Amino acid sequence: MEKNIHPIFERMQSRADKERQLRQRGLAVWFTGLSGSGKSTIAVELERKLAKEGYLCRILDGDNIRHGINADLGFSEEARRENIRRIAEICKLFVDTGIVTLAAFVSPTRELRELARGIIGGGDFFEVHVATPIEECERRDVKGLYAKARRGEIPDFTGISAPFEEPESPSSRMDTTGRTAEACAEELFQQIKPIITYQ
Amino acid sequence: MEKNIHPIFERMQSRADKERQLRQRGLAVWFTGLSGSGKSTIAVELERKLAKEGYLCRILDGDNIRHGINADLGFSEEARRENIRRIAEICKLFVDTGIVTLAAFVSPTRELRELARGIIGGGDFFEVHVATPIEECERRDVKGLYAKARRGEIPDFTGISAPFEEPESPSSRMDTTGRTAEACAEELFQQIKPIITYQ
Repeated sequence: MEKNIHPIFERMQSRADKERQLRQRGLAVWFTGLSGSGKSTIAVELERKLAKEGYLCRILDGDNIRHGINADLGFSEEARRENIRRIAEICKLFVDTGIVTLAAFVSPTRELRELARGIIGGGDFFEVHVATPIEECERRDVKGLYAKARRGEIPDFTGISAPFEEPESPSSRMDTTGRTAEACAEELFQQIKPIITYQ
Repeated sequence: MEKNIHPIFERMQSRADKERQLRQRGLAVWFTGLSGSGKSTIAVELERKLAKEGYLCRILDGDNIRHGINADLGFSEEARRENIRRIAEICKLFVDTGIVTLAAFVSPTRELRELARGIIGGGDFFEVHVATPIEECERRDVKGLYAKARRGEIPDFTGISAPFEEPESPSSRMDTTGRTAEACAEELFQQIKPIITYQ
């Protein structure tokens, strides 16, 4: 390899290059809310809607993160923080590739969400508070976690034995009670459309 | 949200969906080789070439990984293993999004590369041995690391005070001595083109 091994033009393609290629803007949509509030369900619906409109997305959720890169982490306070830190760093890599990245994690404290926002960057962080009341989340109890938590079998369960600190000024807030995931996703789609549209 | 909160059709878009959308196949191209061998330089050239042909790529290298998600890791044997494990998990997420993912890391041992291959999956792991001889790498010494290592200022420096285990049967092998990065990238492009072409 000749002397010009590191000429100035030999740089990685930039985010702007990727966005031009994809004809869309990268964005992190960060869903926060109680277990069973509907975060993942809305993310899945939103992804389907975005794909239909030609946008490239990536969902990050417990299934592909806790069983993959974060399989080494437990549930201590330190591990929960590290969990969110890594997720935010991964979001950043996807957003930097021009991708609409949907992250669905309880992320119960302001500190955790500020950590994520700080890593991703405020301008790329669209915070969605899925504000379904705990009574409704517990009534659904899709994974049977609330029953377990009530029996004391899960320590520090958000909403039961650990607090959920509501975001003060999220980019969006929605209570899913009595609404379909489709309707919630449509509302969100209209909100983010101006941000992710390439022009 | 009504009872149909988790109907069967409400699933994340699959890799096949993303690949159809992007009209390309996901693949991890894993560059292994000594410091200064030309891994990143070839990756940058390959990305430029792929972008020109309409393929979406993501480069993962020391700059965006060691300063980001792996900023907490040192250089102990355990930390080096964890470094590669996380990189491979991130590759997997990108490949699963249909993206041609270029990872440029020394990854000096067979064990480390097998770890990466195991996580990413053999069929998605295209191993490129950038086999530039150490004399040439040391002559270039772009970052001044060889000089430091020779002075004993960097412990366990691959090629000087720690071994590089050559891959036995890489998908591709290239010595960059006397060749341009462009020529190496072109060779690689022709090799991966059949794999990443959507049909």
